Amino acid sequence: MGSEMAPDFPSHLLELEALTRGQIEALLSLAARFKRERARARAGEAPSDRRGLLRGRNVITLFFENSTRTRSSFEVAAKALGADVLSFQKDASSVAKGESLEDTVRNLDAIGADALVVRHPAAGAPRLVARVVRASVINAGDGAHEHPTQGLLDALSLRERWGTVEGKTVAIVGDIAHSRVARSNVHLLSKFGAEIVLCGPASLLPCELAQLAPGVRLTTDIQDAIRDADVIMMLRVQLERQHEAAFPASEYFQFYGLRLEHMDLAKPDAIVMHPGPINRGRELSSEVADFQRSVILNQVENGVAVRMAVLERVIG
Amino acid sequence: MGSEMAPDFPSHLLELEALTRGQIEALLSLAARFKRERARARAGEAPSDRRGLLRGRNVITLFFENSTRTRSSFEVAAKALGADVLSFQKDASSVAKGESLEDTVRNLDAIGADALVVRHPAAGAPRLVARVVRASVINAGDGAHEHPTQGLLDALSLRERWGTVEGKTVAIVGDIAHSRVARSNVHLLSKFGAEIVLCGPASLLPCELAQLAPGVRLTTDIQDAIRDADVIMMLRVQLERQHEAAFPASEYFQFYGLRLEHMDLAKPDAIVMHPGPINRGRELSSEVADFQRSVILNQVENGVAVRMAVLERVIG
Amino acid sequence: MGSEMAPDFPSHLLELEALTRGQIEALLSLAARFKRERARARAGEAPSDRRGLLRGRNVITLFFENSTRTRSSFEVAAKALGADVLSFQKDASSVAKGESLEDTVRNLDAIGADALVVRHPAAGAPRLVARVVRASVINAGDGAHEHPTQGLLDALSLRERWGTVEGKTVAIVGDIAHSRVARSNVHLLSKFGAEIVLCGPASLLPCELAQLAPGVRLTTDIQDAIRDADVIMMLRVQLERQHEAAFPASEYFQFYGLRLEHMDLAKPDAIVMHPGPINRGRELSSEVADFQRSVILNQVENGVAVRMAVLERVIG
Repeated sequence: MGSEMAPDFPSHLLELEALTRGQIEALLSLAARFKRERARARAGEAPSDRRGLLRGRNVITLFFENSTRTRSSFEVAAKALGADVLSFQKDASSVAKGESLEDTVRNLDAIGADALVVRHPAAGAPRLVARVVRASVINAGDGAHEHPTQGLLDALSLRERWGTVEGKTVAIVGDIAHSRVARSNVHLLSKFGAEIVLCGPASLLPCELAQLAPGVRLTTDIQDAIRDADVIMMLRVQLERQHEAAFPASEYFQFYGLRLEHMDLAKPDAIVMHPGPINRGRELSSEVADFQRSVILNQVENGVAVRMAVLERVIG
Repeated sequence: MGSEMAPDFPSHLLELEALTRGQIEALLSLAARFKRERARARAGEAPSDRRGLLRGRNVITLFFENSTRTRSSFEVAAKALGADVLSFQKDASSVAKGESLEDTVRNLDAIGADALVVRHPAAGAPRLVARVVRASVINAGDGAHEHPTQGLLDALSLRERWGTVEGKTVAIVGDIAHSRVARSNVHLLSKFGAEIVLCGPASLLPCELAQLAPGVRLTTDIQDAIRDADVIMMLRVQLERQHEAAFPASEYFQFYGLRLEHMDLAKPDAIVMHPGPINRGRELSSEVADFQRSVILNQVENGVAVRMAVLERVIG
Repeated sequence: MGSEMAPDFPSHLLELEALTRGQIEALLSLAARFKRERARARAGEAPSDRRGLLRGRNVITLFFENSTRTRSSFEVAAKALGADVLSFQKDASSVAKGESLEDTVRNLDAIGADALVVRHPAAGAPRLVARVVRASVINAGDGAHEHPTQGLLDALSLRERWGTVEGKTVAIVGDIAHSRVARSNVHLLSKFGAEIVLCGPASLLPCELAQLAPGVRLTTDIQDAIRDADVIMMLRVQLERQHEAAFPASEYFQFYGLRLEHMDLAKPDAIVMHPGPINRGRELSSEVADFQRSVILNQVENGVAVRMAVLERVIG
C-alpha cells in the first residue's frame, strides 16, 4: 500500500513545515480511509483487518511532559494497526541529572523500537533524537516549535467540512507565542492557501510571527480576528505554565475568551476548534464548547485516524 | 453466541439492583464456561480461542481511586478476549480543578472506547458517564453504591460450591454503611432467595439497610451473625479511609475480627469470603485467611471469568 | 521446540548458580536464534512468526524497585512471543504496611499469571515467591544476590564476540559487594572456564568473594585488574544508594572510573561492557562509553533475545 500512495514520505515526522502539500494530502486521504473503516467496524459491519499492517512492530512513546491525551491517541492508533506499544513518562528535569536524552533513546532503539513518539519541552529535541537512532521518530510536540499530528488532525477536520481550506479564513486565538499547535497549523494552512489570522494579547503575539508563512495577519482584537472567519481555533490557556503574572485568568476570559455572541461576527457556518483539554470559562464559555458547530470531539476522533496514517507511512 | 443466551442484557452494567435473576444466571453460566476453558488451556489442553470475540475492541479503564487489583482483573479479562486495553488512573480531586468528568469521558469516547470501566468515589458517577457516551459503561465501584462485578464473582463462587444460594444464610460482617460490596451482594443474594445477615458496629450499620432488599436482618453481634451461617463474608477495613476515631483498629479486631474459633458457630461446611486485599490481624486472623474453607483466592480467579462474561455481554 | 533442546530446564529461573553449563548453552543458542529472526524481520525479510509461542499466556512483572529498563526489556520480549503483559510497580516499604508479599503474589497467581517476573530489594524474595505460586518465577534482580538474565545477556554478548569465554580474562570493576550483576556473571563465567578479576575499593570488595566460584581473583588496583583483560565490565555507581560517605563521587572516578588511556593496558581487542544505565563521568568517561569496542548497546539488544529465550523455556 505504501508504494502507490506517497513513495517519498520521510522516515521521520518532525515538522509540517518540511512536508509538501502532496505528502500531506496523501496522508489525509489515508487517514480518512482508516476513519471510515473504524466507523464501519463500530457499526458492526465486517471490519477490514488492519492489524497486519504493523504486526510485530514496536511503537515506543517517550513523553517528557505530562499528556495522557496525545499519548493515548497514539497508543490506540498503534494497536489498531497491530503494533506493540511501550510507554515511558519521564521527568525532563530528572533526566538532566542522570542519563542523557541521547543515551535514553539509544537504549530504546536497542530494545527494538521501530517508531519513537517523542514529546519534549525543548524545541528541536525530536530532531536530535532522529540523529542518533535507527527507529523512525514522530514529534508529538516539542516546546513552542511544532505539534505536527495536531496540525494534521485539524486539517482532516477542515477537509471533512469543506473538502479544501483554499480561500478559507482561519482565526487562531490565544497564547500564540508559546503554541506549537499554532505553528503547525500555520505551516499547514499556508501550504493549502488559507488566510490565517493570529490573535492574542500583544505580549503573547510577537510580530515576527507574521513572517512565519505566507497569508498570515496579526491582531490583538478578538472581534477583528473572528469577523468573517470560517474557522475559530481557540488555544488552550496553560493552567500549568501560568503567564498570569502578565495576564490574570479573569481578564483573559474577558478579553480573549470565546463566547456565544462572538459567533455572530463569524461566517454563518463557521466552526469552533480546540486542541483540548478545554478549560470551560477560561478560553471559551461552556455554551461555545457544547455549541452545535463546535467540532472539538470530532478533532479527537480524527487524531486517532491521522496517527494511524502517520505510523503506517513511517514504519508500515 | 450473544443472541442465544441473554438477548436482553443491557448495554451498560451499572448496578445489580437493576438486573433480573435470569440475566444474572445467564451471565454466571457464561463466566463458568470461560473459567473452564481457561483451566483447560493452563493444563496444556487445546485452548478454545476466545481472542476473536473482542478483537479490535477498545476497553478503557478509568479509575478515580487507587486499585491495581480490580483494574488488573478487568485488563486480563479484556485481553483474554482479544481486546485492546488502555488504562487511566486519575486523581478525583485534580479533575475537579481542570477538565470535568463529562469532558474526560467524552474524549475517551471520541478516541474510540467500546467499553469504559469506571471506578469513582462518588455514587452515581458511572450512570452520569453512561448518559454522555456512546461506549458501554461498566461500573467498577462507585462510592458506597455498588460494585456489581464483585457481587457477580461472589455469586459464581457460591454457585460453584452449592449450585444455588436459595435458602442459604450469608453473614456479611464489617463496615456495612460504606460498603458497595455489601450493597451489590445484598441485591444479588436477595434475588436468589438467600437469607442475609448484615453485621457491624452500630455506627456503621444504619437501620434503613434492613429495607434494602427482602430477606435482610441486622445485628451488631458477630456471634449472632455467624451462628448457623453457610457463608461468612468479611469486608475490608479501609486502612485508607479510617473510621478509627469512632473505632480503634485494635478494638475492631477484638469485636468484629473473624477468628478460627468463630467457625465452630457456623455450619460445618461454611465458607469464608473476602473481597481482598486482606489485612491479616485486622478484619480476620491469619489462620482464617489460610483456612481450608476460605475461598478468597477462588474469588480472585472467578473475578477474571466474570469480567470476561460481562465484557462479552456488553460489547461482544 | 522445547523438548529437543533442553528438556531439563527448571520451571523457575532464580539464579545462574543453579544452572548447568549445558542448560545455559541451550538457552543462549535459542536466544541467538531469536535475535537473528528479529534482525531479519527488521530488515524487511519475511519474519518467522513467533507470536504463537506464548499466545494467551500472561506474563506479570512485579517490581519492588524502580526500573523501566529491565521491565521494558521483559515486556518487549514477552509481546514478541505473543504473550499478554501486566506490569506492577510497588513500593517495598508500603507493602510492609498492608498486604504481605505472599498474599500479593498469590493474588497475581489467581488472576492467571503464567510467569511472574520479580525484582525485589531483598535477596531470596523470588525464591519465596516461587514457593507459594503455581506460575513460573523469573528473578529480575534480588538485592545483592543475583540478576540472572543480566548474566545471560552478558554471556550472549561474549559468545557473539569470541564463540567461547574459555580462557578469557574478565575484569569486573566497581561496587562488587552490593552487585547482583557481578554475582550472576561470576557464577556463569566460572562455569565456562573464564578467569575473573573482581576490582573495587577495599570497603566494597569483601575477601570472601574470592570463594564465590573457581577462577576468581581480587584486586583493589584498577590497572592491575585491566592489564591483559579481554573484557572490562564496569558496574553502575548507584546514584540512588550512595556509598559516598565512604567514597565521594569525584574520588571514585579518579580511582575506579574507566578512561580511554586504560584501554592500552588491556588486550588489543578487549571490549567494554556495562549493565546500564551509564553515568558518564562517573564510572566511565564519555569517550569510553562511545568507544568503538564498547558493546553496551549490543548488551541491551541481547537482553530482549535472552528474555525471549527464558520465557519460552519456562512457560513455552
